[in-house]
Amino acid sequence: MIFEFFHVKHVGCVRFVCAACNNSPMNHPATQTLLSELTTLLGCDQVLSEGDLSSWEQDWRKRCNGRALAVVRPGCTEEVAGVVRVCSRLRAQHPECGLSIVPQGGNTGLVVGSTPDESGQQIVLSLQRMNSVREVDVENLTLTAEAGCILQSIQDRALALGFLFPLSLAAEGSCTIGGNLGTNAGGTQVLRFGSTRDLCLGLEVVTAQGDIWHGLSGLRKDNTGYDLRNLFIGSEGTLGVITAATLKLYPLPAAQLCAWAAVPSLEAAVTLLGLAHRCLGAGLTGFELMGQFALHLVDKHLTRLRVPLFRSAPFCVLLEYSDDESEEHAGHRLEHLLVLAQEQSCMTDAIVASSLTQARQLWHVRESIPLAQAQEGQNIKHDISVPVSGVAEFVRVTDALIEAAIPGVQMVNFGHLGDGNLHYNVQAPASMDAALFLRDHEDLVHRIVFDSVHAFGGSISAEHGVGSLKTDDLTRYKSPVALHMMGAIKQALDPQNLMNPGRVVKLPR
Amino acid sequence: MIFEFFHVKHVGCVRFVCAACNNSPMNHPATQTLLSELTTLLGCDQVLSEGDLSSWEQDWRKRCNGRALAVVRPGCTEEVAGVVRVCSRLRAQHPECGLSIVPQGGNTGLVVGSTPDESGQQIVLSLQRMNSVREVDVENLTLTAEAGCILQSIQDRALALGFLFPLSLAAEGSCTIGGNLGTNAGGTQVLRFGSTRDLCLGLEVVTAQGDIWHGLSGLRKDNTGYDLRNLFIGSEGTLGVITAATLKLYPLPAAQLCAWAAVPSLEAAVTLLGLAHRCLGAGLTGFELMGQFALHLVDKHLTRLRVPLFRSAPFCVLLEYSDDESEEHAGHRLEHLLVLAQEQSCMTDAIVASSLTQARQLWHVRESIPLAQAQEGQNIKHDISVPVSGVAEFVRVTDALIEAAIPGVQMVNFGHLGDGNLHYNVQAPASMDAALFLRDHEDLVHRIVFDSVHAFGGSISAEHGVGSLKTDDLTRYKSPVALHMMGAIKQALDPQNLMNPGRVVKLPR
Repeated sequence: MIFEFFHVKHVGCVRFVCAACNNSPMNHPATQTLLSELTTLLGCDQVLSEGDLSSWEQDWRKRCNGRALAVVRPGCTEEVAGVVRVCSRLRAQHPECGLSIVPQGGNTGLVVGSTPDESGQQIVLSLQRMNSVREVDVENLTLTAEAGCILQSIQDRALALGFLFPLSLAAEGSCTIGGNLGTNAGGTQVLRFGSTRDLCLGLEVVTAQGDIWHGLSGLRKDNTGYDLRNLFIGSEGTLGVITAATLKLYPLPAAQLCAWAAVPSLEAAVTLLGLAHRCLGAGLTGFELMGQFALHLVDKHLTRLRVPLFRSAPFCVLLEYSDDESEEHAGHRLEHLLVLAQEQSCMTDAIVASSLTQARQLWHVRESIPLAQAQEGQNIKHDISVPVSGVAEFVRVTDALIEAAIPGVQMVNFGHLGDGNLHYNVQAPASMDAALFLRDHEDLVHRIVFDSVHAFGGSISAEHGVGSLKTDDLTRYKSPVALHMMGAIKQALDPQNLMNPGRVVKLPR
Repeated sequence: MIFEFFHVKHVGCVRFVCAACNNSPMNHPATQTLLSELTTLLGCDQVLSEGDLSSWEQDWRKRCNGRALAVVRPGCTEEVAGVVRVCSRLRAQHPECGLSIVPQGGNTGLVVGSTPDESGQQIVLSLQRMNSVREVDVENLTLTAEAGCILQSIQDRALALGFLFPLSLAAEGSCTIGGNLGTNAGGTQVLRFGSTRDLCLGLEVVTAQGDIWHGLSGLRKDNTGYDLRNLFIGSEGTLGVITAATLKLYPLPAAQLCAWAAVPSLEAAVTLLGLAHRCLGAGLTGFELMGQFALHLVDKHLTRLRVPLFRSAPFCVLLEYSDDESEEHAGHRLEHLLVLAQEQSCMTDAIVASSLTQARQLWHVRESIPLAQAQEGQNIKHDISVPVSGVAEFVRVTDALIEAAIPGVQMVNFGHLGDGNLHYNVQAPASMDAALFLRDHEDLVHRIVFDSVHAFGGSISAEHGVGSLKTDDLTRYKSPVALHMMGAIKQALDPQNLMNPGRVVKLPR
């Protein structure tokens, strides 16, 4: 009964009120009952419904400001299950109430997938307090971490034991492993180690019914039925809540070297990549592409950084090689590759970092591109992938289409060429205000880029996920057969549409 | 109407007849209509309902003899979709008819998952005619193959182009890539390259509704929704029919060396594995364990093979190292490892294959264990996995439990230690007839082994799948929460229970 007036009406842009008593969800008497049950479960410190909740309500890029009914912060899996059960029961009693749950980790996602919408009907379920490493099994090369563990803390823990946890991305100091799993995060080491999905052996999950699936397996082989693990990974909290994971560790390499190469064209970069695969095998752990304009922005805005070799080349490549033997051996192997590359004219010049500090500086240049482009002014961002063999042609064709539509645009093109994944961003023409450019041209540019990606058999979201930002695009570009199956699975595992509704797949709320 | 009498009654052990007209499914007039529609679709040569169909009806290990309503052999994806649509429509018109589809590749599965049951109501859908390699994309390191391609032909095609397709298993000369994908097959290279799942980037699938999902992506990153690819991989034909796949290729190593080491204990073998991981990194491409009795059987029954070092050691290890540089370099690295291993007493003796021929001979010994044990007489087979760190304790505990239950049993223990995956087989005591042993003790031995696997957090099917043989065991050992989700997914994607019913998950037929 308590939620019977909860099917709200939408007034103007952001106000939602009860259709019967004109109360907002937060002021509705029913809400107090819900909050009281959650408080009993978690303690009053862990149920936040007043004060400044913006760090949970606003997304990382500050594109959307949501409004949470409450932020709840369970401290263990049983508490997560309890929260889901309370919400599920109330939702079942009052299907019209619209109450739902948005799981959240470090809130560093780039597609508005882990913040509440504006309805005020959503509970943010923050996993941040669940941040223990539960177990390290050195012989099995596994580490079991709770969802709220900061990625960097897992990397550090592995390192302290002499192992590598290879997931690495810009937000690693803030993002959580639960969020990485929820979005199947990529990063700079995918070329060798795969995305987050490939680094996970087992999961603990609270289902949409509030049951706990104890799937924390350290097994490298287990063919006992459907692959539930990979279904939850990348589902962005829409099927349940990942509460812990068993992750793969790798032996630390004996040495790691970086080279920075100027290449005469994108085709040459792809040739260099093939050569590096053949010469370095699994030792090739990074292959990043950076366009001249992207590097120009770093040079312009981050003047303390030295950006090598970019003035005379349309693209530069940052190549990382990991060796199991020694630094001396690594040097020989890398040199061998660079000599071959020069002979085959797929590289015009190169430098090799002669120390760890120098290598970090090179990576720092690469990782500073997002900051540099932000300082230049907002741009239109993409996170796309095409087969590696199609990258050069894709860029040539798409550059031309965008230039034809908006003469003078500047391409901030960089990314993980080894995975065919480009952050193919579009900056306003020098003469145009960045904010106006976005306002007037964002939809058009997205359309041109996504149409082209689609024509090249690519993906409109390579490593960032779907969230709220790309659900409509998915409807346009994803196969109807696949969308139908996704909807059927969502309906089967979360028939109440309780978990992060409207993200990834759209079902009626 | 045509199928209205098809809800059959079961007479005795293997005869099914129509409840109304006492006809068997094959003689029922309705069947003729179905066959006629399928013949129109595929041509009469590709719809087999008479003569000796045993090569499709009997499973690889000859444990079960099924009876097919017909064997159909479509030649392209559209024909597969057509077959599914015809069957789905008839099934929808006459839900009581029990008609269903069993997809089949090379019919080399080990868990009776791809042969028809005894009802005579099942169509075997053989993919063998769909055996083209559709595309090789050298720059993208991918190969797109139809489901009916023999695994070895894919390996050979890759090799001819200078690449490695690393999936490798005993049945590679007969099994198809569709079957490998359907069962998520493992094999000897999982340690480095993962199971079949890890080698696949995209799928083409005919759904249970007869729609075609064009998911043949060569993308290494694609985060646009739920992971349908991995859901179909390992689903053993119960959710749809895999008709083609885009597979990963790897550069060929410059050299590959094998060592055969005698180890003083299982604990020592695990220590040696850890050492090999640290010294060889991704170069460690195989780590096989063989127990003394298993090797004794090879020595006894395959007298032309020379089995090294097994008389004085409880276990031997076959270790494969792949090097991107040269044979000379590979030799140094392997020697370095073996010296360390001897210093740390995790190895008592070792030989290194000095030629490709010798390496093949060592692998041949390992691969001959199944044949040797068959010549000794049938035994009770398992395909289990536990975390690598638990293998030694698992074997000690379980050996003791079995010996206590059936004194004198002989353990044929071998497998992929690098993955924690053992073929932990149990041979009759020397004094007991093998057939009687199986008849009297198979259930008991399975129970002991599976209970122990469960207690060690392991899997009762590491790489062979579930099929018909292990569905009941799954009900016993798999988490009810996981089973519930699996059932919900099956119901969502195949609400008619048309695809390979009774395998993996049991729903009412």
